[in-house]
Amino acid sequence: MSAPRVIRTVAEMRRAVADFRKAAVDSGSVGFVPTMGYLHEGHASLLRRAREENGLVVLSVFVNPLQFGPGEDFERYPRDEKRDLEVAAACGADIAFMPSAAEMYPNPPLARVTVGEITGKLCGRSRPGHFDGVATVVAKLFNIVQPDRAYFGLKDAQQVAVVAQMARDLNIPVEIVPCPTVREPDGLALSSRNVYLNGEERAQATILYRTLERAREWIAAGADADRLRDRMKQSIAESPLADTDYAEVVTWPGLGDPPAGRPLRDLGEPLLVALAVRFGKTRLIDNMIFTPEEVAATCSGK
Amino acid sequence: MSAPRVIRTVAEMRRAVADFRKAAVDSGSVGFVPTMGYLHEGHASLLRRAREENGLVVLSVFVNPLQFGPGEDFERYPRDEKRDLEVAAACGADIAFMPSAAEMYPNPPLARVTVGEITGKLCGRSRPGHFDGVATVVAKLFNIVQPDRAYFGLKDAQQVAVVAQMARDLNIPVEIVPCPTVREPDGLALSSRNVYLNGEERAQATILYRTLERAREWIAAGADADRLRDRMKQSIAESPLADTDYAEVVTWPGLGDPPAGRPLRDLGEPLLVALAVRFGKTRLIDNMIFTPEEVAATCSGK
Repeated sequence: MSAPRVIRTVAEMRRAVADFRKAAVDSGSVGFVPTMGYLHEGHASLLRRAREENGLVVLSVFVNPLQFGPGEDFERYPRDEKRDLEVAAACGADIAFMPSAAEMYPNPPLARVTVGEITGKLCGRSRPGHFDGVATVVAKLFNIVQPDRAYFGLKDAQQVAVVAQMARDLNIPVEIVPCPTVREPDGLALSSRNVYLNGEERAQATILYRTLERAREWIAAGADADRLRDRMKQSIAESPLADTDYAEVVTWPGLGDPPAGRPLRDLGEPLLVALAVRFGKTRLIDNMIFTPEEVAATCSGK
Repeated sequence: MSAPRVIRTVAEMRRAVADFRKAAVDSGSVGFVPTMGYLHEGHASLLRRAREENGLVVLSVFVNPLQFGPGEDFERYPRDEKRDLEVAAACGADIAFMPSAAEMYPNPPLARVTVGEITGKLCGRSRPGHFDGVATVVAKLFNIVQPDRAYFGLKDAQQVAVVAQMARDLNIPVEIVPCPTVREPDGLALSSRNVYLNGEERAQATILYRTLERAREWIAAGADADRLRDRMKQSIAESPLADTDYAEVVTWPGLGDPPAGRPLRDLGEPLLVALAVRFGKTRLIDNMIFTPEEVAATCSGK
């Protein structure tokens, strides 16, 4: 497919969408895939889905300084614009919006979007301010691109919950489309950060996926929240290089704490089981969402 | 003029604007006047300006609980929908968006917009959380109405600065149009809260305007910030029923503190001189913005 049009400024991005809308027939919708670049097959799956469902597909590549804490990997976060454009072309993206930090933040930004309680759990507890930085840049990007639909990978499930909550609370006219996590053949969730792993770490990193698969069984067998957390931590500890940041279970998509002492399989609402594990300086996350139906099917051995 | 169309729901409001944009020729812009109702001539001036400059004029009337603190006048804030619709009709508004609190906040809102430093001064210091409540509801209204231009009265100068900062920082595609304060013949700035004043308070309330006029002279005569604040407080104290909340001078529109000890007339940037004064339970605000040119003209007696 042909290369996407590369746009670097907010003004040109706005014009491109306005021109599309003016020219489009009634059903000409705009699909948007916001990313931090270094695109992998997970991003590609979002772009392909956006391509199927929209008349115009906009990819953004912006490593957002606002969502990195002090000492995190903002500086060394992997960047490869040329490869990103090849992936974008292969997936049929029309526009690659690649603004500079100066274009996105011409002045120190005073206005921020915060999303309250649900940003204080899971990754939000380990990375204070992270989700406010995400919410703020996504609000900005939504205001610039004005998409009808925006596609987010469920590998970052909490991010999906935060962005959906923001869109709902602030009446942002966009449909948030959560898309399934894409995995390597051995189960490792795709992530731009996987490139940081050395050979041994990479081999042991499958412990996240294997632990989540075990969690499904433990829930089906009647574990309550505390028991599940303990078992998951023990499971991760089987990999000598793995250091658990958190191993959690919360309701989905509200991210509420399940009642203590009650078998999770009896709650009757979807559960997010989520892990964050460090391998050396690299922090990996993964999760699965289990619906009551899935849990019941696991119980009956289907 | 004919009565505006009254819209109560977000969905219908969106449809009305979308229908207008679809039918409109290229120059069909949407002008928006967000208010808390109980419209007076100040609001009317905003509506008339919006009417002159846009193809569609949307008024919103919503007393936003999020911007009132505990013990403030949310419950007793004056409301008169019938009169508001008469004013809207007389000014040629096309749509009056009058949502319920349940329509605007169907769930307790987790997502908020905060605007940092500039919300901590002046009214923000006296009313903690007020401007975050303003920014949040204005962001929501902008997302619902999606106006090209939004009109705000400079009587609430800090509100104008906060909303403009938010729009800039979050890339909201709207032009903020600040409009001059409208005053009674004796100088009292129009405010929905003036209705709270009894006869004696109303008579003494002109002290705000008179103090601002004196401030112009004091600046021209070489006062620095501290001296101006002191003289303004003394001036307000001439009215026995007046109780000063603040008497301040800051740069405009950044709301920065002027350097201490330096004549304000020498700063060479616009100044916002702002007052908040209580008369019994009623808190009135007023302000003037003095440009360097005006100050120079006052100096030379023009």
